[in-house]
Amino acid sequence: MNDQPAKPVWVGFDLGGTKMMAVVFDDQLKILGRKRRKTRSANDRQVTLERLFETIDMAIEDADVTPDRVAGIGAGCPGPLDLQKGLILEAPNLGWKNVALKDQLEKRFKCPATICNDVDGGVFGEYSAGVAKGQRSVLGVFPGTGIGGGFVYEGQIFRGTRASCMEVGYLQLATEGGSAGVGPVGTLEGLASRLAISAEAAKAAYRGQAPRLFELAGTDLSKIRSSVLARAIEKGDTAIEAIVRRAAEQTGWGIGCLINILAPDMVVLGGGLVEALPKLYLESVREGIKRNVLPSLADVHKLRVAELGDLATAIGAAALIKQQLNSRS
Amino acid sequence: MNDQPAKPVWVGFDLGGTKMMAVVFDDQLKILGRKRRKTRSANDRQVTLERLFETIDMAIEDADVTPDRVAGIGAGCPGPLDLQKGLILEAPNLGWKNVALKDQLEKRFKCPATICNDVDGGVFGEYSAGVAKGQRSVLGVFPGTGIGGGFVYEGQIFRGTRASCMEVGYLQLATEGGSAGVGPVGTLEGLASRLAISAEAAKAAYRGQAPRLFELAGTDLSKIRSSVLARAIEKGDTAIEAIVRRAAEQTGWGIGCLINILAPDMVVLGGGLVEALPKLYLESVREGIKRNVLPSLADVHKLRVAELGDLATAIGAAALIKQQLNSRS
Amino acid sequence: MNDQPAKPVWVGFDLGGTKMMAVVFDDQLKILGRKRRKTRSANDRQVTLERLFETIDMAIEDADVTPDRVAGIGAGCPGPLDLQKGLILEAPNLGWKNVALKDQLEKRFKCPATICNDVDGGVFGEYSAGVAKGQRSVLGVFPGTGIGGGFVYEGQIFRGTRASCMEVGYLQLATEGGSAGVGPVGTLEGLASRLAISAEAAKAAYRGQAPRLFELAGTDLSKIRSSVLARAIEKGDTAIEAIVRRAAEQTGWGIGCLINILAPDMVVLGGGLVEALPKLYLESVREGIKRNVLPSLADVHKLRVAELGDLATAIGAAALIKQQLNSRS
Amino acid sequence: MNDQPAKPVWVGFDLGGTKMMAVVFDDQLKILGRKRRKTRSANDRQVTLERLFETIDMAIEDADVTPDRVAGIGAGCPGPLDLQKGLILEAPNLGWKNVALKDQLEKRFKCPATICNDVDGGVFGEYSAGVAKGQRSVLGVFPGTGIGGGFVYEGQIFRGTRASCMEVGYLQLATEGGSAGVGPVGTLEGLASRLAISAEAAKAAYRGQAPRLFELAGTDLSKIRSSVLARAIEKGDTAIEAIVRRAAEQTGWGIGCLINILAPDMVVLGGGLVEALPKLYLESVREGIKRNVLPSLADVHKLRVAELGDLATAIGAAALIKQQLNSRS
Repeated sequence: MNDQPAKPVWVGFDLGGTKMMAVVFDDQLKILGRKRRKTRSANDRQVTLERLFETIDMAIEDADVTPDRVAGIGAGCPGPLDLQKGLILEAPNLGWKNVALKDQLEKRFKCPATICNDVDGGVFGEYSAGVAKGQRSVLGVFPGTGIGGGFVYEGQIFRGTRASCMEVGYLQLATEGGSAGVGPVGTLEGLASRLAISAEAAKAAYRGQAPRLFELAGTDLSKIRSSVLARAIEKGDTAIEAIVRRAAEQTGWGIGCLINILAPDMVVLGGGLVEALPKLYLESVREGIKRNVLPSLADVHKLRVAELGDLATAIGAAALIKQQLNSRS
Repeated sequence: MNDQPAKPVWVGFDLGGTKMMAVVFDDQLKILGRKRRKTRSANDRQVTLERLFETIDMAIEDADVTPDRVAGIGAGCPGPLDLQKGLILEAPNLGWKNVALKDQLEKRFKCPATICNDVDGGVFGEYSAGVAKGQRSVLGVFPGTGIGGGFVYEGQIFRGTRASCMEVGYLQLATEGGSAGVGPVGTLEGLASRLAISAEAAKAAYRGQAPRLFELAGTDLSKIRSSVLARAIEKGDTAIEAIVRRAAEQTGWGIGCLINILAPDMVVLGGGLVEALPKLYLESVREGIKRNVLPSLADVHKLRVAELGDLATAIGAAALIKQQLNSRS
Repeated sequence: MNDQPAKPVWVGFDLGGTKMMAVVFDDQLKILGRKRRKTRSANDRQVTLERLFETIDMAIEDADVTPDRVAGIGAGCPGPLDLQKGLILEAPNLGWKNVALKDQLEKRFKCPATICNDVDGGVFGEYSAGVAKGQRSVLGVFPGTGIGGGFVYEGQIFRGTRASCMEVGYLQLATEGGSAGVGPVGTLEGLASRLAISAEAAKAAYRGQAPRLFELAGTDLSKIRSSVLARAIEKGDTAIEAIVRRAAEQTGWGIGCLINILAPDMVVLGGGLVEALPKLYLESVREGIKRNVLPSLADVHKLRVAELGDLATAIGAAALIKQQLNSRS
Repeated sequence: MNDQPAKPVWVGFDLGGTKMMAVVFDDQLKILGRKRRKTRSANDRQVTLERLFETIDMAIEDADVTPDRVAGIGAGCPGPLDLQKGLILEAPNLGWKNVALKDQLEKRFKCPATICNDVDGGVFGEYSAGVAKGQRSVLGVFPGTGIGGGFVYEGQIFRGTRASCMEVGYLQLATEGGSAGVGPVGTLEGLASRLAISAEAAKAAYRGQAPRLFELAGTDLSKIRSSVLARAIEKGDTAIEAIVRRAAEQTGWGIGCLINILAPDMVVLGGGLVEALPKLYLESVREGIKRNVLPSLADVHKLRVAELGDLATAIGAAALIKQQLNSRS
């Protein structure tokens, strides 16, 4: 940036199932450069790792800083992790098992690194630089193919024993519904994930109850994405609106329970469906929360939509490595 | 058939959403001729009716009998009917409302006619010439896009007030599951119809839990038909087997309730899914019945697979008009 | 009655768990005499039978007719019956197993006898001389300790194979609720019987949510009878009103399903709770029916409160033996 | 204790709905003295407070220490609290609203005081001196009339915004079951509290399915306490065993969800029912956890029965004030 003694920069990395993204930040978490690529898993794990490293290299180049200014790297990763050892225990999309990502990053880039769950990273991002800045405790809920959750408590990512937690998709809300035959039925994820919504929507399309959706995407789950659902509702498919409202309300049932458990200052909702239908979704979540929240806790939380979109995890991961290094010094 | 005084023949007609079929029977319900065509609905209701009449003409021709030997016509029809007046109140697939099918048939063919619900016709067919011959009371359950039911009691199709009944798909079995947002949740149909199974199967395919199904049909509900489900199970998709077993078991929950209500001699299961997977399906239904059936009723019924396949409704409709004319004389 | 050639009289008998009642009717089912006594079971079944016979003797005496004018006796009995053989298969309250009541009555009173399920008898009574007179089909639902059901179809008591049926209390409506651990959960009976209501009410009393009920009956289930519930509501226990409304609504869920199955002309509600709170109960049942009834069947039935009270079973049993003898001659 | 410079002592107080208890501890949380009395609420709040103060006085006397050695007082209290201000917002059993207990204690005893939720206090007690000593995170679950919960995370009582939390009784697990009409149905508390168990047990006794319980306690909820349930099971009431097992399993459903959320090192179960039936209860909870816990979290927690019994809250409250003062210095 300038010729004075180089200030540190931080790298946040988001390792998704379909895309990966590296972002370089200055000390105030302002973005200096970035690179986004398809994830593309290879049979050889080293090839995939190399692609990951290159993406970071490209982001550093884009930021126009020298690699030696990178003070730390944080990486948000899917799947079960061993946070203490910095291991990805399993990442089915990448075909990875027991990959020591933290060590690999430290060896390659010669700076401290850390890993975190990608949803935790996203919530920590919103806490560090987004809608939840400065809140004492923040619960994040992100509906997608599943429903992810993360929690920041007194400035720290909340952590379970040896493992990440806040698996809000696995709250049991009913004894029927969803995932029949292939998992516990009646979970929040089984009832109300984007995938569950898409399946109900496909049924409605098949039965002739959702003509607009049928025109837009037929009856194929893979084509019934959040944006398609939003368009079908806009064009008048009331059945699709009812289906989304129902699922959002059920998400509210789950959030109501979590408020009773955690009593957070703020609940942040994010993900594609929330972004595509923020008003409808929030209204219905709010309605659903009422079913379950205790009167004494009904007004202690704020409900907000996430602000940082796709960047949340990268920001959070960078903020995390920065926090860890600061607390050590 | 021969030159002696002509014996009466009977026409059974099955008016489906996608295909129609006319069958000509002798007095012992032996098939003399038949014709099957696509239903093809036209804007002009008279055009569709004409196509229906032609199909009967063709079946009579195929039977090689003169039209004046037709003693009566029975027609099994979808949708809500007025049985006394012989009206089809509504048939969305045909775009029909209030079509006086009985009168139209009588005028065109100059013989008595009757209409019945298609599922009732199918059960009466199995009672008249199939697996349920001679039973005092027979409950038929036919899972498909919905779940149809019919009941024959002391030799007669059981009839509700002004309307057909045995809407077994609308039994409530749970307070969650299926049809979210567009109808009462937790119905037998919402939980366990072939469509509900296909949607759960598509989700499993999407999540990578059913690789064989994914190869065979992707994630498109319309392509996940009964035969495809059967093939995926055969090739090793245990998730699909679990989904079908669960739905069949839930169908058994409903049948268990119906046995407590009706205590029939026999329960007949039919439809594409049952035909594609008879053993697996029956086993699971039997298991599910146990959940709900009262001990004193546990052994009074027999559980069987339908025998007549696609012909059941036509046979039953012909048997019905024959019965009605015999009881009048 | 007079000195002319003696007209036949009919005896209807109601064998309850706690009381028995014999009633003598003329040919128009007008009451001529009656006797009601505690049931009192003895170790020796013959002693109990003798008490039953005496009760009939007393009713005949009360009617001031000679025993030889008794043309037939009908008896409504609890528990599983063999209707063809006239056996009480099991009556736990009496300690009876396989008692040939029909034969015993015929031998003692030297006239034809018949037995029927007590709830069937009650519905047949309402059909013969009560609120459902002349209806083509009548469904009766009687909530009490359990929830009994009966059905009259085209002038006859609907009968299952070898057994009585219409066990409406065993409809599954949910996968949770009631009878936990000692039977299938989520049944209509488990959710909404008077006993289920009393248990919820006792909990509310225990938690201090129902102070009036607590004053009236404490927290003892045995003391929380229908009349006590009614009084607590009248005195202002809104929690008790909410509990009864909820149960009545769930009863409506079940009735909605039964309308989809049977499409009866009339649904008759009876029993102590309905009599104690007719308006509140009917309103909530009507609300609950809406959840499940198909639009095409929503207006084909009439919903009524039973008229004959305690006499229904005796009247129905007498009407039944009269009908059986008339149809034979 | 001795004549040397007086070491500090700590007072833990447990303010229950029916009894109150004060305990004096040395610096190692060893008990020096105690006093337990009925709570007895008076119309005048000052009278009740005075009784509370006297109880502490008596415990100090029992400990044989001078009041000036009391370094701090911690009090575990029921109901919603304002932890920052030290207020009891509402305690229905005492008829209290907005009582500044912390200030009152500090004024009377001239030493620092703190208040905490009684269940939090109990869990902190088990963490400080009981079965959960030294665990990084401990979830406590205490089934009683309701189902209480508390959580200790990294050595601190986990706290919500302005309020206590971990209201585990209000987890929604089903959409039917319990609390019908007077609260959200299907909660853990509605399904599985000791009160819910007693109500199901009373129904079983009423129906003749639990003869031993009937002998012991009739059908009165208030008499069906934990010890009575245990005795009925011991004497052979299999229905009661099934009811308790079912409820414990459902408690496990809820704990399974909480493990997915919090991933604690240890789960501690306490309360009268657990103490009366530890083996049966733990077995069934363990079974229930399996329904919901994620495979990756299935083995990270330990499940234990609480050790400190009635003393847990007093110990925890004393440990809490000690911790607060130590962290300030």
